[in-house]
Amino acid sequence: MRSILRRREFLVNTVGIAIVTALASMAAFAQAADPLPSWNNGPAKQAILHFVAQTTEKSSPDYVQPQERIATFDQDGTLWVEQPLPTQAIYCLDRVPALVAAKPELKNVEPFKTVLSGDRAAIANLSVKDLEQILAATLTGMTTDQFQSEVTSWLASARDARWHRPYTQLTYQPMQELLRYLRANGFTTYIVTGGGQDFVRIFSEQTYGIPPQQVVGSIGGVTFTHDANGKPVLIKDPKLMLNNNGPGKVEGIHMMIGRRPYAAFGNTPGDQQMLEYTRAGNGPRLAMLVLHDDAVREYAYGPARGLPTVKLGAFPQDYYDLAIKSGWVVISMKNDWNRVFAFEK
Amino acid sequence: MRSILRRREFLVNTVGIAIVTALASMAAFAQAADPLPSWNNGPAKQAILHFVAQTTEKSSPDYVQPQERIATFDQDGTLWVEQPLPTQAIYCLDRVPALVAAKPELKNVEPFKTVLSGDRAAIANLSVKDLEQILAATLTGMTTDQFQSEVTSWLASARDARWHRPYTQLTYQPMQELLRYLRANGFTTYIVTGGGQDFVRIFSEQTYGIPPQQVVGSIGGVTFTHDANGKPVLIKDPKLMLNNNGPGKVEGIHMMIGRRPYAAFGNTPGDQQMLEYTRAGNGPRLAMLVLHDDAVREYAYGPARGLPTVKLGAFPQDYYDLAIKSGWVVISMKNDWNRVFAFEK
Repeated sequence: MRSILRRREFLVNTVGIAIVTALASMAAFAQAADPLPSWNNGPAKQAILHFVAQTTEKSSPDYVQPQERIATFDQDGTLWVEQPLPTQAIYCLDRVPALVAAKPELKNVEPFKTVLSGDRAAIANLSVKDLEQILAATLTGMTTDQFQSEVTSWLASARDARWHRPYTQLTYQPMQELLRYLRANGFTTYIVTGGGQDFVRIFSEQTYGIPPQQVVGSIGGVTFTHDANGKPVLIKDPKLMLNNNGPGKVEGIHMMIGRRPYAAFGNTPGDQQMLEYTRAGNGPRLAMLVLHDDAVREYAYGPARGLPTVKLGAFPQDYYDLAIKSGWVVISMKNDWNRVFAFEK
Repeated sequence: MRSILRRREFLVNTVGIAIVTALASMAAFAQAADPLPSWNNGPAKQAILHFVAQTTEKSSPDYVQPQERIATFDQDGTLWVEQPLPTQAIYCLDRVPALVAAKPELKNVEPFKTVLSGDRAAIANLSVKDLEQILAATLTGMTTDQFQSEVTSWLASARDARWHRPYTQLTYQPMQELLRYLRANGFTTYIVTGGGQDFVRIFSEQTYGIPPQQVVGSIGGVTFTHDANGKPVLIKDPKLMLNNNGPGKVEGIHMMIGRRPYAAFGNTPGDQQMLEYTRAGNGPRLAMLVLHDDAVREYAYGPARGLPTVKLGAFPQDYYDLAIKSGWVVISMKNDWNRVFAFEK
């Protein structure tokens, strides 16, 4: 008798568990019903949903094996704000006082003198050569561990001038949802940025859920050596191994991933070859361009059609036309996103 | 009544499934009891089991988060046979006839003439400069897709001279078990090879379960361009971007992974810095050296202590002494492995 009772108890429990499991699945389904809540129901959102269904449903003739599901994202202007300057450039300028404190002989030497003056107009007029000198002085010459600690403490304290928030909060909420949605569907998400690989890797995991090995960026050399205590260290070199921009993005994808993406996302001509290379693969390939056309919630700088152009990240009219001609899908920040930032009410 | 019968049927089925599941789990457990069956129960196997328990059991004071669990493996001589020549070198020599067929002007030009002669002694005496010329001619100048198709068809037909088997069957069974065991415990396994990254990626997924993005090798440049049909392609350049050997392995790990390994495996002085860098991290770090001391089942070439030395992959006495002094664990092929190849009876 006892054994029968126990058995019944077991069976009841089993059925109970089955019901709870079914309810949980339904709840998960209801939640999953809109994986992209910050996207308005327009052509951009539809293109994403269609692409994911096409590549991941087993019955689809365009089904793609999970290990082949690679999605690559430009960072500056695609995942987070890049105006008035990309965040890494602000970091480099902000580092100049500490650099001069450590090397006082630079105090009266250009371009450091101009940066220290705080004269915004003069800083904005620095030449590319000047900027390269500032980048080399603030991004190289230290160990990789020192660099990581300098960037980490800057990220914790620095605030942007417009929203007065840490830069890592200036990511686009719709793109964060897109990253998670693709990962939930078996895609591996990569950042493919013209910015420094070592810089972006420091915050990519916490900010985007993208671990360091999935960040492809411009690569400076490192030299293996030993410190004064005999401990092996890597020193960051001024030598540029990969300029991960334009055609360099495709070279970087080949080098770091070794597989052609099925989906790629960008916003400037520096992303053109990556989008082109992605689309040139067999089967369904999604290429999307973030269009900055919302001066109220973010910035409006491209394409030129009726919008003011800015120096950095300009998105010219002919590039927009190329996008349409090539079957790329344009994401209008103004029309496709009902929310830009997570901190919005 | 029918509904009760149905219900009973459902319950019986449920219980049946539960029992089958339990039995399957027990079988899996029995199988999992020895995850490394080709390893004898000596210090090398014990070091591996101890390291995995230490880093993966939640109660361990040395617990390591899954995303930090990186294990890096040299390939030639660590995962597969590298004697009498590394497989990629054989590939390059084997490609010479096809190369000369396409470019007949090379027929009477050295070093191609010597390779075509088939004179083994003369081929063995080719200088490093000669070999570099052969490598450049057989590994570059084509698109990445062409290279992939050439290597794939060679791998399918080429047989090694001693075992008369495809080269991809000459992997060490105990190391294959180790790769799977580490992955089953949340480690991400990487190949970190002095060989060409593009070459190894072609077979790494099928041969080792390691996808292309987890292969770090010597990197030649590629150039993005368009073919005659306007399709974007990558051409393999003779430019060496990374010599992934010695200190270059640590530089490659930083560039491609961005995290210090918790475990590293090698067999030659080209692996020294990788092992040293791995051990220099905090917490438990496993560094292991495969010692080739089994002339009967494989080759015996290192360390020099009582063993013949060979030209390639030599493992000198002082390196062995360094290993012991540094706390690296030596894997004796002769004593630690009860089976070397999967095809052994």
